[in-house]
Amino acid sequence: MVATSDKDQITELQRFSAAQARIELDQKNISSEELVKACLDRIELREKDLNAWTFIDPDLAISQARKLDNELKRSEIHGIPIGIKDIYDTCDMPTAYGTSFMKNHKPSRDSNWVSILRSAGAVLIGKTKTTEFANAFPTTTRNPHNLSRSPGASSSGSAAAVADFMVPLAIGSQTGGSIIRPAAYCGVYGYKPSIEGLPKGNVRHAKPSIDTPGIFSRSIKDISVLRSVSMNDSSRVSTISKINSLRLGLCRTEHWDHAMPETKEIIKETTEILSKHGISLQNIQLPDELSEAMEEFSVIVTLEDARAISKDCAEQFERLNPWSQRVLKEANEFSSNRYQNAKKLAERARDKINHIFENIDFIITPATRGEAPLDIESVEPSYFNSVWTLMHLPCISLPAFTGPNGMPLGLQIVGPVNDDSRLLTAAKAIENVINNHNYPT
Amino acid sequence: MVATSDKDQITELQRFSAAQARIELDQKNISSEELVKACLDRIELREKDLNAWTFIDPDLAISQARKLDNELKRSEIHGIPIGIKDIYDTCDMPTAYGTSFMKNHKPSRDSNWVSILRSAGAVLIGKTKTTEFANAFPTTTRNPHNLSRSPGASSSGSAAAVADFMVPLAIGSQTGGSIIRPAAYCGVYGYKPSIEGLPKGNVRHAKPSIDTPGIFSRSIKDISVLRSVSMNDSSRVSTISKINSLRLGLCRTEHWDHAMPETKEIIKETTEILSKHGISLQNIQLPDELSEAMEEFSVIVTLEDARAISKDCAEQFERLNPWSQRVLKEANEFSSNRYQNAKKLAERARDKINHIFENIDFIITPATRGEAPLDIESVEPSYFNSVWTLMHLPCISLPAFTGPNGMPLGLQIVGPVNDDSRLLTAAKAIENVINNHNYPT
Repeated sequence: MVATSDKDQITELQRFSAAQARIELDQKNISSEELVKACLDRIELREKDLNAWTFIDPDLAISQARKLDNELKRSEIHGIPIGIKDIYDTCDMPTAYGTSFMKNHKPSRDSNWVSILRSAGAVLIGKTKTTEFANAFPTTTRNPHNLSRSPGASSSGSAAAVADFMVPLAIGSQTGGSIIRPAAYCGVYGYKPSIEGLPKGNVRHAKPSIDTPGIFSRSIKDISVLRSVSMNDSSRVSTISKINSLRLGLCRTEHWDHAMPETKEIIKETTEILSKHGISLQNIQLPDELSEAMEEFSVIVTLEDARAISKDCAEQFERLNPWSQRVLKEANEFSSNRYQNAKKLAERARDKINHIFENIDFIITPATRGEAPLDIESVEPSYFNSVWTLMHLPCISLPAFTGPNGMPLGLQIVGPVNDDSRLLTAAKAIENVINNHNYPT
Repeated sequence: MVATSDKDQITELQRFSAAQARIELDQKNISSEELVKACLDRIELREKDLNAWTFIDPDLAISQARKLDNELKRSEIHGIPIGIKDIYDTCDMPTAYGTSFMKNHKPSRDSNWVSILRSAGAVLIGKTKTTEFANAFPTTTRNPHNLSRSPGASSSGSAAAVADFMVPLAIGSQTGGSIIRPAAYCGVYGYKPSIEGLPKGNVRHAKPSIDTPGIFSRSIKDISVLRSVSMNDSSRVSTISKINSLRLGLCRTEHWDHAMPETKEIIKETTEILSKHGISLQNIQLPDELSEAMEEFSVIVTLEDARAISKDCAEQFERLNPWSQRVLKEANEFSSNRYQNAKKLAERARDKINHIFENIDFIITPATRGEAPLDIESVEPSYFNSVWTLMHLPCISLPAFTGPNGMPLGLQIVGPVNDDSRLLTAAKAIENVINNHNYPT
């Protein structure tokens, strides 16, 4: 974890991962109320600089915590504060989906994942800032590591809030790179599961064949805990991998030329470190079917996006950001046949990529082009992310490196579909190797 | 719908489908409290005969309804009473999983689907009777159409309660035939979705690679409503099919010899009726890969079942029913390799069946061997169900026929994976053709 500008002021409670807080809560060393108040203090201190939240009601958060403090433990996240990206509906907090014109929208019920987290005893501490309808056009959130830089989109607030110790866990979602990119820029863990890896029902503007919920945290353990609480998929619990038994691939992707020197450097370092541990990375060329599917990626995104957002935007075209306006215009240009064909191309490419995972356990690949963009207005392409989202594969970004300007750099690891638990285990093993290695800084 | 023995006493409120009740609720002609009280009256009248419920707390149900009556509508099931199979955890009602030794088990949180239904404003009216851990060994529930006969297992209570007008909707789950079979025996609609078609997280004893949540109702519309509220999968909304544009297959399966004369008769009638409407059913031979996968079906079920239930049964072996005891014993005989191989065979068979659906839209196939068994102690094989569950395909049983003893008979329709919405649309179209046809009774 890279230092934030107010790092000295961060208290022990604010520093806790969810798993660390769990231990203290279970031993009655702390209460959920204390934990929540510590988070609220940090938010109070830093929010004016960061703009990570669209809604915080301290009383509502504290009242949830008090109630949970008086109850039997419902789950491993009982009493743990969680930030909710403002594309997820909440029955007790406004949900604006990043728009200017739905600021007072109050859903009458929770999105499915939110209701599950609530039932599991999480403290829903507030709503984090998202770009409009989670598209790629930036919002006003700033990067905790350098306030002039972008935190990455679209789950901007969730990534920044977790990075800044405002909350140990936050949830987001990814169409292109909306989890992995802000996680990498902000120096936290970002996890985008397999397409069905987290509860995705009742997200009002979700693009059904691509959008995937995801998690931001300051430890891999916390991802595993939140995932397990959300799905309880006990079949997928894996054993610890021996690092040198892993068959790892390295995929530079066809966008390697877009990678900045720092990204090329950390891929080189990773290769060298792993090589010293007896692990040679097999070079992975993505099959042509993936490039062909990616050529039509925007057809799927645009049509599904237009379908999802048009119901709320009929009268609001002028108030939409340029990205949303473009989506609504372009959607008319794509025929239903072209959309169906795009989905078929994606399906064919998924078959191909599944075959690659017969000979490889995991793929190491860049998380972003480089360090976070220099301003918060840039629209960043998701060169190193969209393909994995379209392929429905689980991805994690590890905050394992620092760039030339002291900004965090993420390393992305991608696994086979529905093998999320093993991916998390492998990511931990790979991270251990990197962190324990004395590479020159 | 076939008459129940107390049919004359069924009130209008009790007779309402969820969709009908929705209209009356929206127009303020009725309140949720009135609807719930009507259900409770029916339960009071008939439960001593039927044994459909393991837990009913009228005050808890009425208090939910009163609260919801004073709220804005959260969803299309706001204020609608729903029965919950007692394998789903409920944070405010005991959950015994059909066992004798967990009668006082009180989960601290809801299973995911339950928390979603609660968040959507459903009245969770009570827990319906299930066989032990939803296995195939019968429970004490009786068939509303003939109290000496079986209602089918394992979602026995949910099927009987809906059939007897105790509740318009109930949820269940299927490993072999636990939705389709009781629905067919009790003369209601049963819907087992695609494997990921309904929220399946946090079901304590679920067998992850096969078990699928499902719905019992007295109308297809209600299945569609509950499905939509649970998943909000707007991408899958389909248009009404023209019945004679459907490419339908008829699959007798390799268990045709086990079908009783009444089942053979309704398949013949269905073929004739559809033929008169210009639809010829294409005979479907299931590929050998399916038979090979089915030979190892019990390996998957037994190992996953043993893994799921063993944590609650370590000290309770003698108190388990014979089925659970057998599972725990047999699980030791199957190697991990054999289990992995069984899963691979299933995967290979799924590829094959997906190809069949390139030339066929839906498959018509028996729902059960015949009418409900003559007693409530019989263990019924799921000849006509397990294969579709293992293949992860969506299935619906239509209560379209009556057998020689006046008992309901179901007609099963099976669709391609993840095409659930179109399956429901087609099922409605097929039902209309059958119901409007003057076939001899």
